[in-house]
Amino acid sequence: MIGVVAKLAVADGKNAEFEEVAKDLMAKVKANEAGCLTYQLYKSKSDGQSYIFMEQYSSEDALKRHGQTDYFKAAGPKLGACLTGRPEVEYYDIVE
Amino acid sequence: MIGVVAKLAVADGKNAEFEEVAKDLMAKVKANEAGCLTYQLYKSKSDGQSYIFMEQYSSEDALKRHGQTDYFKAAGPKLGACLTGRPEVEYYDIVE
Repeated sequence: MIGVVAKLAVADGKNAEFEEVAKDLMAKVKANEAGCLTYQLYKSKSDGQSYIFMEQYSSEDALKRHGQTDYFKAAGPKLGACLTGRPEVEYYDIVE
Repeated sequence: MIGVVAKLAVADGKNAEFEEVAKDLMAKVKANEAGCLTYQLYKSKSDGQSYIFMEQYSSEDALKRHGQTDYFKAAGPKLGACLTGRPEVEYYDIVE
Protein backbone atom coordinates (compact mmCIF):
# COMPACT_ATOMS: atom_id res chain seq x y z
CA MET A 1 0.00 0.00 0.00
CA ILE A 2 1.16 3.52 -0.83
CA GLY A 3 0.46 6.56 1.33
CA VAL A 4 0.46 10.15 0.10
CA VAL A 5 0.19 13.40 2.03
CA ALA A 6 -0.20 16.46 -0.21
CA LYS A 7 0.08 19.74 1.70
CA LEU A 8 -1.59 22.78 0.15
CA ALA A 9 -1.38 26.44 1.21
CA VAL A 10 -4.54 28.27 0.11
CA ALA A 11 -4.55 32.02 -0.55
CA ASP A 12 -6.68 34.30 1.65
CA GLY A 13 -10.20 34.54 0.26
CA LYS A 14 -9.84 31.42 -1.89
CA ASN A 15 -10.97 28.82 0.67
CA ALA A 16 -14.53 28.38 -0.63
CA GLU A 17 -13.43 28.06 -4.27
CA PHE A 18 -10.65 25.64 -3.31
CA GLU A 19 -12.93 23.45 -1.19
CA GLU A 20 -15.58 23.30 -3.94
CA VAL A 21 -13.09 22.04 -6.54
CA ALA A 22 -11.50 19.64 -4.02
CA LYS A 23 -14.89 18.17 -2.99
CA ASP A 24 -15.81 17.56 -6.62
CA LEU A 25 -12.46 15.82 -7.14
CA MET A 26 -12.95 13.66 -4.02
CA ALA A 27 -16.38 12.56 -5.25
CA LYS A 28 -14.96 11.55 -8.65
CA VAL A 29 -12.05 9.64 -7.09
CA LYS A 30 -14.38 7.75 -4.74
CA ALA A 31 -16.76 6.90 -7.59
CA ASN A 32 -14.11 5.71 -10.05
CA GLU A 33 -11.01 4.38 -8.29
CA ALA A 34 -11.33 1.07 -6.48
CA GLY A 35 -7.58 1.13 -5.85
CA CYS A 36 -7.76 4.43 -4.00
CA LEU A 37 -8.70 3.48 -0.45
CA THR A 38 -8.51 6.94 1.13
CA TYR A 39 -8.74 10.33 -0.59
CA GLN A 40 -9.76 12.86 1.99
CA LEU A 41 -9.32 16.61 2.27
CA TYR A 42 -8.49 17.97 5.73
CA LYS A 43 -8.06 21.55 6.98
CA SER A 44 -5.43 22.32 9.61
CA LYS A 45 -6.76 23.16 13.06
CA SER A 46 -3.85 25.56 13.64
CA ASP A 47 -3.78 27.34 10.24
CA GLY A 48 -7.03 27.97 8.36
CA GLN A 49 -5.15 28.37 5.05
CA SER A 50 -3.35 25.01 5.30
CA TYR A 51 -4.92 21.82 3.95
CA ILE A 52 -3.86 18.26 3.19
CA PHE A 53 -5.13 15.51 0.98
CA MET A 54 -4.65 12.30 2.97
CA GLU A 55 -4.39 9.42 0.46
CA GLN A 56 -3.96 5.63 0.50
CA TYR A 57 -3.61 3.46 -2.60
CA SER A 58 -3.62 -0.32 -2.93
CA SER A 59 -0.62 -0.29 -5.29
CA GLU A 60 1.78 1.82 -7.33
CA ASP A 61 -0.42 1.14 -10.34
CA ALA A 62 -3.46 2.55 -8.54
CA LEU A 63 -1.51 5.71 -7.70
CA LYS A 64 -0.34 6.01 -11.31
CA ARG A 65 -3.87 5.53 -12.66
CA HIS A 66 -5.14 8.25 -10.29
CA GLY A 67 -2.69 10.76 -11.72
CA GLN A 68 -3.71 9.90 -15.27
CA THR A 69 -7.46 10.42 -14.89
CA ASP A 70 -9.06 13.24 -16.87
CA TYR A 71 -10.76 14.65 -13.77
CA PHE A 72 -7.48 14.78 -11.82
CA LYS A 73 -5.73 16.54 -14.70
CA ALA A 74 -8.65 18.99 -15.00
CA ALA A 75 -8.71 19.76 -11.25
CA GLY A 76 -4.98 20.52 -11.05
CA PRO A 77 -5.01 24.03 -12.58
CA LYS A 78 -8.25 24.95 -10.76
CA LEU A 79 -6.78 23.95 -7.39
CA GLY A 80 -3.43 25.51 -8.28
CA ALA A 81 -5.12 28.87 -8.93
CA CYS A 82 -6.20 28.93 -5.26
CA LEU A 83 -2.75 28.24 -3.80
CA THR A 84 0.09 30.50 -2.69
CA GLY A 85 2.74 28.06 -3.94
CA ARG A 86 3.37 24.55 -5.19
CA PRO A 87 1.85 21.63 -3.25
CA GLU A 88 4.28 19.70 -1.04
CA VAL A 89 3.65 16.04 -1.85
CA GLU A 90 5.26 13.21 0.16
CA TYR A 91 5.09 9.54 -0.84
CA TYR A 92 5.24 6.65 1.63
CA ASP A 93 5.39 2.84 1.71
CA ILE A 94 3.18 1.05 4.21
CA VAL A 95 4.83 -0.62 7.21
CA GLU A 96 2.87 -3.65 8.33
CA MET B 1 -13.87 13.49 11.64
CA ILE B 2 -10.39 14.39 12.82
CA GLY B 3 -7.20 13.74 10.87
CA VAL B 4 -3.74 13.48 12.40
CA VAL B 5 -0.34 13.21 10.71
CA ALA B 6 2.50 12.51 13.16
CA LYS B 7 5.94 12.80 11.56
CA LEU B 8 8.78 10.87 13.20
CA ALA B 9 12.53 11.00 12.47
CA VAL B 10 14.13 7.67 13.42
CA ALA B 11 17.81 7.45 14.40
CA ASP B 12 20.18 5.40 12.21
CA GLY B 13 20.17 1.77 13.31
CA LYS B 14 16.89 2.11 15.22
CA ASN B 15 14.48 1.30 12.38
CA ALA B 16 13.80 -2.33 13.32
CA GLU B 17 13.21 -1.52 17.00
CA PHE B 18 10.99 1.44 16.09
CA GLU B 19 8.91 -0.57 13.63
CA GLU B 20 8.43 -3.42 16.11
CA VAL B 21 7.05 -1.09 18.80
CA ALA B 22 4.93 0.80 16.24
CA LYS B 23 3.43 -2.41 14.81
CA ASP B 24 2.48 -3.60 18.29
CA LEU B 25 0.83 -0.23 18.95
CA MET B 26 -1.07 -0.38 15.64
CA ALA B 27 -2.40 -3.84 16.48
CA LYS B 28 -3.64 -2.66 19.88
CA VAL B 29 -5.30 0.45 18.44
CA LYS B 30 -7.06 -1.60 15.76
CA ALA B 31 -8.25 -4.16 18.32
CA ASN B 32 -9.55 -1.67 20.88
CA GLU B 33 -10.59 1.63 19.29
CA ALA B 34 -13.76 1.58 17.20
CA GLY B 35 -13.51 5.38 16.91
CA CYS B 36 -10.07 5.20 15.31
CA LEU B 37 -10.76 4.61 11.62
CA THR B 38 -7.17 4.77 10.35
CA TYR B 39 -3.95 4.25 12.30
CA GLN B 40 -1.25 3.34 9.86
CA LEU B 41 2.51 3.63 9.93
CA TYR B 42 4.21 4.68 6.68
CA LYS B 43 7.89 5.04 5.77
CA SER B 44 8.98 7.83 3.44
CA LYS B 45 10.06 6.76 -0.05
CA SER B 46 12.62 9.59 -0.18
CA ASP B 47 14.10 9.31 3.34
CA GLY B 48 14.43 5.90 5.00
CA GLN B 49 14.64 7.48 8.46
CA SER B 50 11.38 9.43 8.10
CA TYR B 51 8.02 7.90 9.06
CA ILE B 52 4.45 9.06 9.61
CA PHE B 53 1.47 7.74 11.48
CA MET B 54 -1.54 8.51 9.27
CA GLU B 55 -4.59 8.70 11.55
CA GLN B 56 -8.35 9.31 11.25
CA TYR B 57 -10.77 9.50 14.20
CA SER B 58 -14.54 9.63 14.21
CA SER B 59 -14.60 12.43 16.81
CA GLU B 60 -12.57 14.56 19.21
CA ASP B 61 -13.60 12.13 21.96
CA ALA B 62 -12.16 9.19 20.04
CA LEU B 63 -8.86 11.07 19.62
CA LYS B 64 -8.82 11.92 23.32
CA ARG B 65 -9.55 8.31 24.34
CA HIS B 66 -6.70 7.13 22.09
CA GLY B 67 -4.22 9.33 23.93
CA GLN B 68 -5.42 8.07 27.30
CA THR B 69 -5.02 4.35 26.65
CA ASP B 70 -2.44 2.46 28.70
CA TYR B 71 -0.84 0.96 25.60
CA PHE B 72 -0.42 4.39 23.94
CA LYS B 73 1.16 5.80 27.09
CA ALA B 74 3.45 2.76 27.33
CA ALA B 75 4.54 2.97 23.68
CA GLY B 76 5.47 6.68 23.87
CA PRO B 77 8.83 6.36 25.65
CA LYS B 78 9.75 3.24 23.64
CA LEU B 79 9.10 5.03 20.34
CA GLY B 80 10.72 8.21 21.64
CA ALA B 81 13.95 6.32 22.42
CA CYS B 82 14.28 5.55 18.69
CA LEU B 83 13.85 9.14 17.45
CA THR B 84 16.29 11.95 16.77
CA GLY B 85 13.85 14.59 18.06
CA ARG B 86 10.29 15.26 19.07
CA PRO B 87 7.48 14.06 16.78
CA GLU B 88 5.84 16.75 14.64
CA VAL B 89 2.10 16.23 15.08
CA GLU B 90 -0.48 18.12 13.01
CA TYR B 91 -4.23 18.03 13.67
CA TYR B 92 -6.89 18.52 10.99
CA ASP B 93 -10.68 18.84 10.61
CA ILE B 94 -12.32 16.92 7.80
CA VAL B 95 -13.69 18.88 4.81
CA GLU B 96 -16.70 17.17 3.30
